[in-house]
Amino acid sequence: MIINFSERAHNHNWDLDPIVRSLLDTDFYKLLMLQFIWKHFRTTNVAFSLRNRNATMRLADVIRREELISQLEHVKRLRFRRSELIWLAGNTFYSTRGIFEPAFLEWLEHDFALSEYELQERDGQLDLIFSGPWVSVTMWEIYALSIVNELKTRAALKGMSEFELDILYARAKTRLWSKITRLQNVPGLAIADFGTRRRHSFLWQEYVVEAMHAELGKSFTGTSNTFLAYKHDMEAIGTNAHEIPMAMAALTDNDADLKASQYRMLELWQQTYGGSLLVMLPDTYGTTQFLEHAPNWVTGWTGQRVDSKDPFVAGDEYIQWLQKRGADPRSKLLIASDGLDVQEILSLHAYFGGEIQPGVSAMNFRDAADFHDERKWRPDRRIRFSAGWGTLLTNDFRDCHPRNEDGLEPISLVCKLRSAEGRPAVKLSDNYLKASGPPDLVEHYRRVFGLAGMANLPVVV
Amino acid sequence: MIINFSERAHNHNWDLDPIVRSLLDTDFYKLLMLQFIWKHFRTTNVAFSLRNRNATMRLADVIRREELISQLEHVKRLRFRRSELIWLAGNTFYSTRGIFEPAFLEWLEHDFALSEYELQERDGQLDLIFSGPWVSVTMWEIYALSIVNELKTRAALKGMSEFELDILYARAKTRLWSKITRLQNVPGLAIADFGTRRRHSFLWQEYVVEAMHAELGKSFTGTSNTFLAYKHDMEAIGTNAHEIPMAMAALTDNDADLKASQYRMLELWQQTYGGSLLVMLPDTYGTTQFLEHAPNWVTGWTGQRVDSKDPFVAGDEYIQWLQKRGADPRSKLLIASDGLDVQEILSLHAYFGGEIQPGVSAMNFRDAADFHDERKWRPDRRIRFSAGWGTLLTNDFRDCHPRNEDGLEPISLVCKLRSAEGRPAVKLSDNYLKASGPPDLVEHYRRVFGLAGMANLPVVV
Repeated sequence: MIINFSERAHNHNWDLDPIVRSLLDTDFYKLLMLQFIWKHFRTTNVAFSLRNRNATMRLADVIRREELISQLEHVKRLRFRRSELIWLAGNTFYSTRGIFEPAFLEWLEHDFALSEYELQERDGQLDLIFSGPWVSVTMWEIYALSIVNELKTRAALKGMSEFELDILYARAKTRLWSKITRLQNVPGLAIADFGTRRRHSFLWQEYVVEAMHAELGKSFTGTSNTFLAYKHDMEAIGTNAHEIPMAMAALTDNDADLKASQYRMLELWQQTYGGSLLVMLPDTYGTTQFLEHAPNWVTGWTGQRVDSKDPFVAGDEYIQWLQKRGADPRSKLLIASDGLDVQEILSLHAYFGGEIQPGVSAMNFRDAADFHDERKWRPDRRIRFSAGWGTLLTNDFRDCHPRNEDGLEPISLVCKLRSAEGRPAVKLSDNYLKASGPPDLVEHYRRVFGLAGMANLPVVV
Repeated sequence: MIINFSERAHNHNWDLDPIVRSLLDTDFYKLLMLQFIWKHFRTTNVAFSLRNRNATMRLADVIRREELISQLEHVKRLRFRRSELIWLAGNTFYSTRGIFEPAFLEWLEHDFALSEYELQERDGQLDLIFSGPWVSVTMWEIYALSIVNELKTRAALKGMSEFELDILYARAKTRLWSKITRLQNVPGLAIADFGTRRRHSFLWQEYVVEAMHAELGKSFTGTSNTFLAYKHDMEAIGTNAHEIPMAMAALTDNDADLKASQYRMLELWQQTYGGSLLVMLPDTYGTTQFLEHAPNWVTGWTGQRVDSKDPFVAGDEYIQWLQKRGADPRSKLLIASDGLDVQEILSLHAYFGGEIQPGVSAMNFRDAADFHDERKWRPDRRIRFSAGWGTLLTNDFRDCHPRNEDGLEPISLVCKLRSAEGRPAVKLSDNYLKASGPPDLVEHYRRVFGLAGMANLPVVV
């Protein structure tokens, strides 16, 4: 065995093992939203903040401040590469070429820059605040989340021997494989990777995504990670997120405009994009009120993503709403994306897809009552269902630690819009416990939007 | 990432990936026996043959003849390296320095050579016959077994994608780790690796042995593989095998000498070695008759290895025999080495070691009746127990294949003495089904030695 001297010397001399390797290493919807913001809110100033919702996990004790800063500074120095921009310009997204305008791509190449940030330690937590023009701030979300998550991973791996690391990954791969084999040969299944933000590490996400791509065939519809889609010729998946309706809500001056802002956002979006990119996220201020008061043209949208409601309930609600409004739900798309794992994916697929398949039995329903309820178990497709599989795809290391320590458990880390033009941003969501914003303003929003259809659900990841 | 051009070019150009990397890559007892043969039977001619006892596994369909020949020829070209011989001379084996005589090491360096071989295909099987001076033939056993086993492994791996291979090894490592964790923190446990001959591959055995060494502390007493002991500073384990009593039996001219030959072998061995190397293998012609007729000095031996009898029964029999002969079994050693896995190792340790430990419960006994039999469950050590863990340590890939194929199941491959000076060799063993030799001669041996204590047990691996 001849030693690779250059590799060896490089390995013990490098000063940074970068977490974010490319500005494309972000969710595709961030790029769609960036163009949207660049078009409609180019001068709007916002603030985002990164918070850990698990108070018991003291991140500041685990992650060294200088490490975090080096990684953030590394991302600030990154530029979109020529071939990445050519790919954005020339690739087909959702069967459409030219989704990104030449002027936007020019701007990305020459003028895009990430905002400054402030790092504070408080109660053992690391608070990161990003503020400045929305177009400079928004992209921090995914970079910051994946950096903090991977630094936490690295900290947990630090004390492990080479052999223990090997066992850790052997166990995680065994787990991954057992998940993949359960998903093989299920007709009509559609799953995408949504796990960038809470991934164990970039390299692990890449491994997982390549495995899914190789083993699930067309059931694996793509990845939200634009860099992985670019690097491995996969579909880039995603449309939009809460930050847009939240900012547009914050910018209103009265309750009528506030309530209308959630539809105004949809109008602007469909002006900007069309076709398959018309997937709405109706839960920002509660799905039930959103649907009830929606203008009729909203039934023309391709589908909805369910993020904070029990997806069985949310899907039924959407189907009934479509039927009531005279639309055929079977041509619409329902995307679930909150804390999914194999069991729930198969159950949701069976429940909405309606096909009875080998390996999908009563066990795949949440409970036996659902299975025996004939109204819920139909031979026909009720709606097109697709799973956006996140944390439990790209960061399921539960019980994989060789010494059974818990440093690798995923934490509920979020990076959210805090304010727009100095006005605090509020999100209610369908889960009462997930509301965010200053308490008095949350109360005000609750009065405006009501509490219809909201529930308390445990926040998993 | 800078490509290592020399490695890459080497990888797609090499003509042989050798299976046996060193003449030390053999069971330690082969070297002890080689010196014994060199001293006492230097001119004796023998024949060994390699056979696959699983008729359903058609080896000749799986292993290419030329591949097998290239590997065998590679071993024939190997020589003991200077530093290996210095290690044999200078190392302490079983607390004794100078176990190998200078004249023997001289001979190893200058005169040792492997015999010729004949390769025949018959009914889809590969039969290998090695014949010539015993000192040139005996070492083939382990080299040939590990070559054929690893070629079988390589054939099974050939159709797998890189990802499938990765999953295969992830599963096998996960399995290995679950075994190791069950064995951790069991006071007084003693386990050695005996898995060279039926290993999955050399590199996998090396991985397994290093893992055991790192994780089990002094419970891992060493490896029978001399090359691994040399390479990783471990204890080399082993004493002797059936070929010696079988050859000495074949060379006798009458029934009285035949019956006496099993003790004559012990006399010669203790003339040659002493101390801890006095571990006998009493099952060649049946343990029960062996003990019953043994001269009293046999109680002075350190212990026995159980190879073909239920080790619970064999241990009890040995303990009772020692007590009847006035010897204290608690200072003696019982080594089990036939088809062991974690469950049986823990049960035997609890049964003979007598210590009640966390994790060792009724479940660790073969059946609940044993656990409730108070005579069998004692707080004191009854005998020193040690496990020689073989195939299910170094080749447990059951259910690890990503497509659930069975090409990696271990097979019952043996390489045995067939004749000495043209006279057929016979083994009876404690397992009636494991008898080997020409049928009429087996019958003759059975009349001479009797059938006391023999049973039919399934042959696992």
